[in-house]
Amino acid sequence: MVKQDRAIRTRKNILEAAARVFEERGYQAATIAEILGAAGVTKGALYFHFESKEQLAQGVLHEQDQRFVTPDRACKLQELADVVLLHAYRLQSDPMVRAGVRLTMDQHAEGLDRSGPFLRWSQVCRGLLEEARDQSELLPHVVPSVTADVVVGTFAGVQSMSQTVSEYQDLRSRSSALLRHLFPSIAVPSVLASLDLSEQRGEAVYEEIRLQLRRQPAAAVS
Amino acid sequence: MVKQDRAIRTRKNILEAAARVFEERGYQAATIAEILGAAGVTKGALYFHFESKEQLAQGVLHEQDQRFVTPDRACKLQELADVVLLHAYRLQSDPMVRAGVRLTMDQHAEGLDRSGPFLRWSQVCRGLLEEARDQSELLPHVVPSVTADVVVGTFAGVQSMSQTVSEYQDLRSRSSALLRHLFPSIAVPSVLASLDLSEQRGEAVYEEIRLQLRRQPAAAVS
Repeated sequence: MVKQDRAIRTRKNILEAAARVFEERGYQAATIAEILGAAGVTKGALYFHFESKEQLAQGVLHEQDQRFVTPDRACKLQELADVVLLHAYRLQSDPMVRAGVRLTMDQHAEGLDRSGPFLRWSQVCRGLLEEARDQSELLPHVVPSVTADVVVGTFAGVQSMSQTVSEYQDLRSRSSALLRHLFPSIAVPSVLASLDLSEQRGEAVYEEIRLQLRRQPAAAVS
Repeated sequence: MVKQDRAIRTRKNILEAAARVFEERGYQAATIAEILGAAGVTKGALYFHFESKEQLAQGVLHEQDQRFVTPDRACKLQELADVVLLHAYRLQSDPMVRAGVRLTMDQHAEGLDRSGPFLRWSQVCRGLLEEARDQSELLPHVVPSVTADVVVGTFAGVQSMSQTVSEYQDLRSRSSALLRHLFPSIAVPSVLASLDLSEQRGEAVYEEIRLQLRRQPAAAVS
């Protein structure tokens, strides 16, 4: 058990170092030697967990959508909004999430399949939209797969614009504005009127999850 | 006059070569030597027009939003939709536009101010939204500056997702889906019902402009 704990910690160290190096240098320019240096582990330890630079990048990409799970909501469109606003909050505050998103948007990362996060996020959104449809939250013309891609693609651009013009300082207000523009064409009016799409929502959800995790330490994820 | 024509042609050659090199290699990795090779011009000719790699990139960035002007429409929200759908069509079909957009989204382009296109596109959209508001096309809560940034940011993400998952094959349908999601929270219903937000719109506007330019050859831009 102790041995296993150590392996998990080492893997986490390596991924955090890889995240920092990829974020600073870009995928193409980053080298395994730099990641080794930043992680402060042996070559053997690194190759035990990751066989190549691409596997390291896939590890970072995977972290962005796995670490924090939005709590279940009775209203599935609120849950969808929470997914987006929580992600925006974490993008501002967690280097690992930021590194994953930047890798996803790195057009010059040759040989790295970057479609994974787009497709995984799309699936999450599509699932929530299908549940929302089943409990009559959606306007009748909404096609969950199409709307899921619109939510994911638009958020990708809003975060990119926020990074470019303000280094993410305005990401929360931009994310809230995004949802206020999208949801009127998705939700029936009675649901729309009940949603919290505010700038503060992401941080509130984050604190809610942290409190939950503190109560059940066995389920801690970070 | 002939000399001036030649200078314009040379400048255009250089920018097209720079666009190709930036698109293939990324801003950071691209060199002036490669651009010289691709353009087939002398060092003197290149430096006469552009003093640095950054100036070359700014030239490419500038081309994406200057070359084709959307025709005036009585309905300003249709004009806004036309701007977006025409840009999507040209992104699929014009390497110079594609290179400009990819430079804008290139996170590892150190020392290159990439905020210009975001801000210029935002200004264009904001202007159209203000005109739309003045002729009562907008829902009362719409703030043109906020909505302009949502339109620009969301389109940036939709094109990026389309590039990643389909190499732009599905860009027209994604752009149409984007506008069908955004405009219900922007336009009053009577205007909304009159808009053409279809996938075919971008190409139709492109052909309309080409026809106009052929009739007035003096105003040709490309």
